Amino acid sequence: MHGTDTAPARALLVDPRSGLADVHDLAQRLRTDAIRCSTTAGSGHPTSGMSAADIMAVLMTRHLRYDWRDPDAPGNDHLIFSKGHASPLLYAMFKAAGVISDDELVHTYRRPGSRLQGHPTPVLPWVDAATGALGQGIGIGVGIALAGRLRHRNHARPQVWILCGDSEMAEGSVWEALDTAGRYDLGELTVIVDVNRLGQRGPTALQWDLHAYVKRVEAFGCTAIPVDGHDLAELDTALDTARRGGRPTVVLARTRKGRGVAEIEDLPGWHGKALPDDLAERAVTELGAPADVRVSGLEPAGPRQDGKSTLPIGRADVRVPEFARGDEVAVRKAFGEALLALQVRPEVVVVDAEVGNSTYTDAFAKACPERFFESFIAEQQMVATAVGLSVSGFKPFAATFAAFFSRAYDFVRMAAITGADLALCGTHCGVEIGEDGPSQMGLEDLAMMRAVHGSTVLYPSDATSAAALTVTMAGLPGISYLRATRGAYPVLYDPGERFPIGGSRTLHANDGDQVALLAAGVTVHECLKAREILAAEGIGARILDLYSVKPLDAEAVARAAADTGRIVVVEDHHPEGGLGEAVLSALAECGVAPEFGHLAVRSMPDSRAAGEQLEAAGISAAHIVTLARQLASGR
Amino acid sequence: MHGTDTAPARALLVDPRSGLADVHDLAQRLRTDAIRCSTTAGSGHPTSGMSAADIMAVLMTRHLRYDWRDPDAPGNDHLIFSKGHASPLLYAMFKAAGVISDDELVHTYRRPGSRLQGHPTPVLPWVDAATGALGQGIGIGVGIALAGRLRHRNHARPQVWILCGDSEMAEGSVWEALDTAGRYDLGELTVIVDVNRLGQRGPTALQWDLHAYVKRVEAFGCTAIPVDGHDLAELDTALDTARRGGRPTVVLARTRKGRGVAEIEDLPGWHGKALPDDLAERAVTELGAPADVRVSGLEPAGPRQDGKSTLPIGRADVRVPEFARGDEVAVRKAFGEALLALQVRPEVVVVDAEVGNSTYTDAFAKACPERFFESFIAEQQMVATAVGLSVSGFKPFAATFAAFFSRAYDFVRMAAITGADLALCGTHCGVEIGEDGPSQMGLEDLAMMRAVHGSTVLYPSDATSAAALTVTMAGLPGISYLRATRGAYPVLYDPGERFPIGGSRTLHANDGDQVALLAAGVTVHECLKAREILAAEGIGARILDLYSVKPLDAEAVARAAADTGRIVVVEDHHPEGGLGEAVLSALAECGVAPEFGHLAVRSMPDSRAAGEQLEAAGISAAHIVTLARQLASGR
Repeated sequence: MHGTDTAPARALLVDPRSGLADVHDLAQRLRTDAIRCSTTAGSGHPTSGMSAADIMAVLMTRHLRYDWRDPDAPGNDHLIFSKGHASPLLYAMFKAAGVISDDELVHTYRRPGSRLQGHPTPVLPWVDAATGALGQGIGIGVGIALAGRLRHRNHARPQVWILCGDSEMAEGSVWEALDTAGRYDLGELTVIVDVNRLGQRGPTALQWDLHAYVKRVEAFGCTAIPVDGHDLAELDTALDTARRGGRPTVVLARTRKGRGVAEIEDLPGWHGKALPDDLAERAVTELGAPADVRVSGLEPAGPRQDGKSTLPIGRADVRVPEFARGDEVAVRKAFGEALLALQVRPEVVVVDAEVGNSTYTDAFAKACPERFFESFIAEQQMVATAVGLSVSGFKPFAATFAAFFSRAYDFVRMAAITGADLALCGTHCGVEIGEDGPSQMGLEDLAMMRAVHGSTVLYPSDATSAAALTVTMAGLPGISYLRATRGAYPVLYDPGERFPIGGSRTLHANDGDQVALLAAGVTVHECLKAREILAAEGIGARILDLYSVKPLDAEAVARAAADTGRIVVVEDHHPEGGLGEAVLSALAECGVAPEFGHLAVRSMPDSRAAGEQLEAAGISAAHIVTLARQLASGR
Repeated sequence: MHGTDTAPARALLVDPRSGLADVHDLAQRLRTDAIRCSTTAGSGHPTSGMSAADIMAVLMTRHLRYDWRDPDAPGNDHLIFSKGHASPLLYAMFKAAGVISDDELVHTYRRPGSRLQGHPTPVLPWVDAATGALGQGIGIGVGIALAGRLRHRNHARPQVWILCGDSEMAEGSVWEALDTAGRYDLGELTVIVDVNRLGQRGPTALQWDLHAYVKRVEAFGCTAIPVDGHDLAELDTALDTARRGGRPTVVLARTRKGRGVAEIEDLPGWHGKALPDDLAERAVTELGAPADVRVSGLEPAGPRQDGKSTLPIGRADVRVPEFARGDEVAVRKAFGEALLALQVRPEVVVVDAEVGNSTYTDAFAKACPERFFESFIAEQQMVATAVGLSVSGFKPFAATFAAFFSRAYDFVRMAAITGADLALCGTHCGVEIGEDGPSQMGLEDLAMMRAVHGSTVLYPSDATSAAALTVTMAGLPGISYLRATRGAYPVLYDPGERFPIGGSRTLHANDGDQVALLAAGVTVHECLKAREILAAEGIGARILDLYSVKPLDAEAVARAAADTGRIVVVEDHHPEGGLGEAVLSALAECGVAPEFGHLAVRSMPDSRAAGEQLEAAGISAAHIVTLARQLASGR
């Protein structure tokens, strides 16, 4: 039954002038469709949608200003299902809006190749960001709202509506997001929490204690409105108040999971379960077998002329900062200077986690304060803000210590699913940071960032390449990551030299080289020192600067291997998942099998100066010489 | 000057009966020593300690019950510097307690091989957990307090004191921790926030708005006490109230960074900077060139006989759950059953992030509710609780979806520095999860967990090996990670078979095998299917089950490579940092270079059934057959 449409041929039309009885019919239809598509698929979360159906029915008929035929219209409001598992409800709304057919909804949901996936992604034009990892929706919404302020300075700003589950309010990232919303006083942000009191495995911590939520929301600088989430009039008033109030608002809606079907309503054991056929049939009957509903919706608030063409995409030439060969300049400093030069591109925006004086984003912040967003020490929100800015057409750079991107890994992973274009810069990588010790050392970041789908991972050895790559990142799609060493090292390249993604630089190569030293970042400098010592011993060493860790210059690596027969990779990173394994993958792909040595950080560092750290970790020039000598002499 | 001790030979003795004037002298001496050691080292954060010196002087003389000669005494209070960068203050306290010498403090701080590292680690016997990644101290303290409740049921419980910076209050993890403290009503937890209003790069978001902090703390279920952090009497009363109040308490201390030295006090630009020699000299003079101080401290509250011998370490035999070959059982189910069997070991405790019905920790939770801790959807706190339990002598298992461990990566990374023994289980790994789609798929977890220092990474293919490995994990040091497939697959091994760490299982091997198929987890089953098809074509395929991804059985891999000359690795993970690269590293180490093929998840998955996912990702039996056939035929 559920697979076929029981509704009459003519759909009920609900528009902003309709009465709440019609809105109720819409809600019942949304529930019905959520049940139908998940039961047909045999999986999904109908009950988590049923609790929020009344909220969404009120929202989409009376508050959401959205041109469903033109999802890119700049005046459109935004709707983010932070509780992405409630996708059956979201897709039922799309059907009610007339943008997907009943057939697509019921017969493709969760099927191979369908855009109606288990959790929403921007494969669908009405979805801003992928959700499904909980606690991310508000943070991304904050980024979208901040983007709106840049884009709609003189116009009414679109509202950003976010539907959250109550379980996800336990994620600390939610409070980072509300803190940020409060600080920026984002009146265009309205969060609606579907407090259905039941999580995946049982009751939530706070259950229906709306008062506890109210206190938290208000303490974090937002307005809280507790409501009965099944009282349409109360919801209508709350959403109206939220929109007009001019303050970031969280509507706390007390609801019942599985609402409308007695056999499952407010009962545990129904999370993430499609109803069996017979129960689905009884459920649709109990819901009144409601007629199909068509929602006309409200026109976007923003003026039409503020369209896509005004998206802030600049083509201005960027004056790449120049550095003199031999001068000692930190890569992070070059990153900061390049960022400053990128200010001529109006789409470039910068986010930092309260370390701008270390990442050198502070120059950009000073020059373009309106395009700089301080996240304070909240790395999850830093990345979430960047995602929101990216999906709104901006090109965000986000910077903090390499080690602390580990705090935001789930957000980076999800950003790849969203298809966001993020330029991340992790400074203070490796043991090279010196005295601060292991807590501040990024020693897992190459592994972490390489494993992100479609990522680009860059690790320049000098200021010239760092500046060039930073400027390149401003035009790169997907997640790109620049690994930046703390200390100052000699500039190796002349201004104007090119550093294409997927390329490498061969610093020394002679016929008869007996070994190739492959490195990136700080260890390039150690290889240069090692080369001189080896040369004095009559051992010729080729040096490759593999500044593009992903994609790697497999051809150059294979050529070096074929020419010399011996490869030594040296990296300031744990041995797993970093440059060494990237090189091994490239060699395997090319079918070249040189002798291979791999120097990486295999012990737990302590506090000591940078040079002493490299020595203690076994990645200094001395260790390179020893290993290269061994290999060259056949051990 | 600062390198030599200006104090008179006889130190001032401060004990609980001393007046506040003596406590003030102690505070001034702590400031002096924080300046001296960092100036001698040439780096460090003296100003971040100077703001909290009065707090710590009051704490260590009048409230901290701690036998400095016996840091393992079970009745000892705990003191965690969540603001780990204030280590000069902490180490100055150790000197005042008489457990390190002035010489060690001033001349080894931040030096090679010194235990006085830039940020504290448990290399020092008075330090419970490594800090320095901000926002972690309260969460770990919550775990220590929960451990105290298990260990000290009938006795006075040690107090857990945590010093936080105000910048770190922006981390969401802080609110996950306070939420948990409030829910368990941990009266033995006292947090002191050093609200010095200045972060690394400038003012914090809330500066000295103590009222804003009070509202947040109270909203999260804890008691807040705002105080003047330089008024010793007020601090004394607050700490007394906090300890006696029986509720988790946050003392919000308004302080001035660099307190006591006019040239730097409350001024920006002095974060993380050692004072230059001349300024250090003037500073010590301004602080009164205070005499050396010796603190006798307070005796621990807990009874002596409740000593180490009563630590809950069990030696009881664990009855490993048994499964019949051929039965279809999910690895996560076997994990849950093994966990249940581990209840006979009293040191085993379990934490879960509200998905116990998916990770199958729910059986343990039901059987041993007092040893199960529900973290709700707060993965950072889940790992922090586990760390606190581990450093208190328990053996925590922590489980959630593999994808969501990415949320807690910074905590896992720091746990390795702490030297915590954590057994982590990530279920629902890879595309195999099916219809739920990419947001729920752990496709980066092998890379992430392999890159953790000293980690063990396990990925069993069947219930028998999963159960055996889970029991083994209960005795493993360091961070161990079990990757658990969602679906049910045939049991491959007989009960009682052994699965040593670093081992592998060769499932099929014959003379004349032309290719070796290397896999772990679900792809082992695909390899078994592929083998049959290849056998029908006359191609002999050896199959290795590499259930121990780290350490990897390099010998077996090298032997398979040498015997067959062709290796195909198949993994349900992104190609970077996973099983394929682990195999390449092992081959490189052994100097064996077979032909190599690598099947991994290279595209962005959507929603479809598990088998269809493997097919679409190119890691199914059909793809294995095609690649193996190509390799065997010389392409």
